[in-house]
Amino acid sequence: MTLERIAIVLVETTHPGNIGATARVMGNMGLTDLRLVTPRRFPDPDADARASGADAILSSARVFDHLADALADCHYVVGTTARRREASWTVHAPVAAATELLRRANEGLGVALVFGRESSGLSNAETDLCDALVTVPVNPDFPSLNLAAAVTILSYELRRLHLEGASVATEVAAERAPPATVEEREMLFRHLEQTMRDLAFLKVEKPDKLMRKIRHLYLKAQPVSEEVAILRGILSSIQEQIDK
Amino acid sequence: MTLERIAIVLVETTHPGNIGATARVMGNMGLTDLRLVTPRRFPDPDADARASGADAILSSARVFDHLADALADCHYVVGTTARRREASWTVHAPVAAATELLRRANEGLGVALVFGRESSGLSNAETDLCDALVTVPVNPDFPSLNLAAAVTILSYELRRLHLEGASVATEVAAERAPPATVEEREMLFRHLEQTMRDLAFLKVEKPDKLMRKIRHLYLKAQPVSEEVAILRGILSSIQEQIDK
Repeated sequence: MTLERIAIVLVETTHPGNIGATARVMGNMGLTDLRLVTPRRFPDPDADARASGADAILSSARVFDHLADALADCHYVVGTTARRREASWTVHAPVAAATELLRRANEGLGVALVFGRESSGLSNAETDLCDALVTVPVNPDFPSLNLAAAVTILSYELRRLHLEGASVATEVAAERAPPATVEEREMLFRHLEQTMRDLAFLKVEKPDKLMRKIRHLYLKAQPVSEEVAILRGILSSIQEQIDK
Repeated sequence: MTLERIAIVLVETTHPGNIGATARVMGNMGLTDLRLVTPRRFPDPDADARASGADAILSSARVFDHLADALADCHYVVGTTARRREASWTVHAPVAAATELLRRANEGLGVALVFGRESSGLSNAETDLCDALVTVPVNPDFPSLNLAAAVTILSYELRRLHLEGASVATEVAAERAPPATVEEREMLFRHLEQTMRDLAFLKVEKPDKLMRKIRHLYLKAQPVSEEVAILRGILSSIQEQIDK
């Protein structure tokens, strides 16, 4: 059940062969939940050919218009990156990322591992949806990792560490409440941004940098649903006060 | 230097795209020594396309007619397998196989990791050339792993464990002599088989089963060059005695 709670999300994949190869290696590794955000071509014969029998995974793959929609029901999200990002991001090696994903999936939470475009990876707006990033430690002289190869390595680590963990005693279920879903978080962030505009706090044309810092602050806190509700209650109250 | 002493050997690859994908991920992981045994099509535009810039590895790849020739200068060989083999084989998980390969490569020995055909893997005669086997722990309900995916997983483990080891103190060079090369071993086995025929010990039509057991016995001993020379001296002496 643990591996089935881990969604593999491919964002704007150009080559359908990579979607097929992803489905195949997911089948090999016991993963089942494939989500596609605006794939260039899907369904496609090239995807079917490379899936090589992993038809059930391909046919049950869900397609979304936006990454936030694909992640709406997830509680913890790891994005893949080839680049060093700003210092505020936690960038894990594959073992650490897989460990974090498995720990939460073991607790019954929905988690996701997100892969960006073949050419350019994930946008800043997309990594903003993630709790942490993961990078494969490649040769700096030849760092360009194929999308399907990245999926293969991380799916393998998930299975390997899951099997290792499975031989240990079942993890004690966490007492604390589950963290908020991405959907809840995003509604909070939108609410926050709107409130800040209402407050004329966000006066600059491009408030992205400030919003990003605020976002990181809250993500680090891993708020639970109840906390998100409280924060939004406060925001609503602020907005009402301003309207007066 | 350690990773450069690890040869990746592909046996009778059908799809040149898999050769290209292998070269690419080798470049990503810092591996350089690609050897091909009777590839169906090579060089090939599909290999070039999937290599995606790993041209130096593709163009320096060496092509052989037989696996034994490709392994002639190697001291330790791990073959990949999808199947459970006879009990006498050591079948490692990827971490253990990569650890064994790296340990010997760190000691300055040439080592190889061998991948079989897309359809049918390695033949028994080919696995007989190996010191150990490795299998990726896949989902038993969907075990068919793509060749390039298998190369990706094992190359990744080699790099990951190499980087981990690199931060530890340099391994103390082994005092003992290096094990014999595959070429030396194979000459010993041929010499042994011929001697047993001369002795009329191998009377059956198909002596493969017996020879395989003998082979395993010697491989388990990991003979050094000098030991091989001594054994062959004994065999020559036996043959001379028979001729009298």
